[in-house]
Amino acid sequence: MAAPKKNGQQTVWFGSQPVIVSSVAIAGKKEGEGPLAETFHKVVDDPYYNEKSWEKAEQYMLEEAMQNAIVKANLKAKDIDFMLAGDLLNQIVSANYTARNVGIPFLGLYGACSTLYEGLAIAGMLIDGDFADYVLVGTASHYSTAERQYRNPVEHGSQKTMTTQRTVTGAGALVLARSGVGPVITHATIGKVVDLGETDVNNMGSAMAPAAVETIIKHLEDTGRQSDYYDAYITGDLGRYGRKLASNMMQKRGLDISEKLEDCGCLIFNEDDQDTHGGGSGCGCAAVVTCGHLLKEVENGNIKRFLGVGTGALMSPLSTQQGETIPGIAHAVVI
Amino acid sequence: MAAPKKNGQQTVWFGSQPVIVSSVAIAGKKEGEGPLAETFHKVVDDPYYNEKSWEKAEQYMLEEAMQNAIVKANLKAKDIDFMLAGDLLNQIVSANYTARNVGIPFLGLYGACSTLYEGLAIAGMLIDGDFADYVLVGTASHYSTAERQYRNPVEHGSQKTMTTQRTVTGAGALVLARSGVGPVITHATIGKVVDLGETDVNNMGSAMAPAAVETIIKHLEDTGRQSDYYDAYITGDLGRYGRKLASNMMQKRGLDISEKLEDCGCLIFNEDDQDTHGGGSGCGCAAVVTCGHLLKEVENGNIKRFLGVGTGALMSPLSTQQGETIPGIAHAVVI
Repeated sequence: MAAPKKNGQQTVWFGSQPVIVSSVAIAGKKEGEGPLAETFHKVVDDPYYNEKSWEKAEQYMLEEAMQNAIVKANLKAKDIDFMLAGDLLNQIVSANYTARNVGIPFLGLYGACSTLYEGLAIAGMLIDGDFADYVLVGTASHYSTAERQYRNPVEHGSQKTMTTQRTVTGAGALVLARSGVGPVITHATIGKVVDLGETDVNNMGSAMAPAAVETIIKHLEDTGRQSDYYDAYITGDLGRYGRKLASNMMQKRGLDISEKLEDCGCLIFNEDDQDTHGGGSGCGCAAVVTCGHLLKEVENGNIKRFLGVGTGALMSPLSTQQGETIPGIAHAVVI
Repeated sequence: MAAPKKNGQQTVWFGSQPVIVSSVAIAGKKEGEGPLAETFHKVVDDPYYNEKSWEKAEQYMLEEAMQNAIVKANLKAKDIDFMLAGDLLNQIVSANYTARNVGIPFLGLYGACSTLYEGLAIAGMLIDGDFADYVLVGTASHYSTAERQYRNPVEHGSQKTMTTQRTVTGAGALVLARSGVGPVITHATIGKVVDLGETDVNNMGSAMAPAAVETIIKHLEDTGRQSDYYDAYITGDLGRYGRKLASNMMQKRGLDISEKLEDCGCLIFNEDDQDTHGGGSGCGCAAVVTCGHLLKEVENGNIKRFLGVGTGALMSPLSTQQGETIPGIAHAVVI
């Protein structure tokens, strides 16, 4: 049962403590050469993954992660009540075709890179609200499909600025259940869209940092918790510049979490020798780091509880061309 | 309180009967010349709506519908717990920028033209699950932005096939509340993605018809109701060809609802003199017909209860180019 949420609060509380009973992280070659290599369940060296296009490879990677998450939970597709998924491609086609092939009642989401956490938050409400016993959540991204759609064709070999982040190739999926063994989720804080006027699409971490800060502060206010309550605050894909900005903004608001603030985009690549500039980004970034590294850290007891903060930049190439700024959003889930 | 949903069912039941306390439909010029003209709350003659691009006009139309739905419900934005929205544009930018300007915690959705019903279904679960008192749901589409993104630039003046449907210019928004006066929603059936191999993007109604049929049949099975239980079955945007196909498919499955099956895409334009070929389509189609005409029919007592079936075609221009077929989805809500 949910606790009544007061007017103005953005945080919901899951009385029944839904459990992450399985998770799968499938990553690309470069991700598999990084510091988190050992935490992925599979590393795919071929960017085409035996398919004819990068887009089909991305879709297949998501489908494999979803199917494996079901198997790992000792379930069949027919046991799952709902599938929640989305991705970065126009019309979230990776998720749509995966839903077709997996055959579970499907709710499509778009939260840009915050999609895994948006899905986890909604899944928590569907289970805690007694509408589902099992919900499958997943998302994926692919370096080459994102470059093609959002930036420049990979074949151009365009020089990138130092703030640019590299879209992670990878897919993450998990099964959230009413009961079982695994890390539990207890709260979710749904973010508002925040836009401080950033217009540089090569510095998206900085565009998303204010949204992450607002969501973390609102979460602590809503729950009445002190900032030292959590072992870690893990943002999705702010990257090196965005993480620093978020840390500074928190300090200005009187909360120093700089020691505890980590970012999936910083964790996934080695800063010194992987040449990924600002770090990782994309739906797959928070997904593979959460479904691989972070949930393992919780299972191993290295992290007792953390606030995962999925971050998303909500522009499109067309809105940027039409002079719009980059709005950001962040959804937080307590794991 | 939700009733426990059995394994394999796709229908959730809202014990608390959430109420649609306000709704707003804003439509474009051609829609305003059609048979439902009197049911729209506003008709906008200028396709640019005083903005510099069609995309900005679409976004502004959605924002106006959302803001007016809040006002009509005698609420302020801070009273609304969540906003659920999506649209057809890449990265759902109309919804994102609307969420930025409205300032309500935001969950972005992508269900193509089924978005209003996807949002209504999730909103029902969030309220019935005790996570929210008020949820704002809305979506929009625009003829010219959809042509530009999905088909041919309007300036080309390309000849259209007779099965082509015309994307509706319009925005619909509604506020779903825990209590109040207005039509209530009692059940939602979440669709699976269905794909029978249709590849003609100029015949999307036929691609979506099988999904609508599956969802209606599953709904009747899950609820144990006979097909004559409802006064009407209203699909989102199958159009003339898709509606006929759906009706035939239902008959083959032993259920004749041909007299009761209507489609928002057929209702919105006059077949004889508006030259819209297969009828209307787009997120805005189901949205303005539901938020205008249908809810008025319920309020006037002309319809006692109907099953609204939002239908979506889940391809993208890129997936079509890469040889994929068109998967369809349908979510049903009892109003």
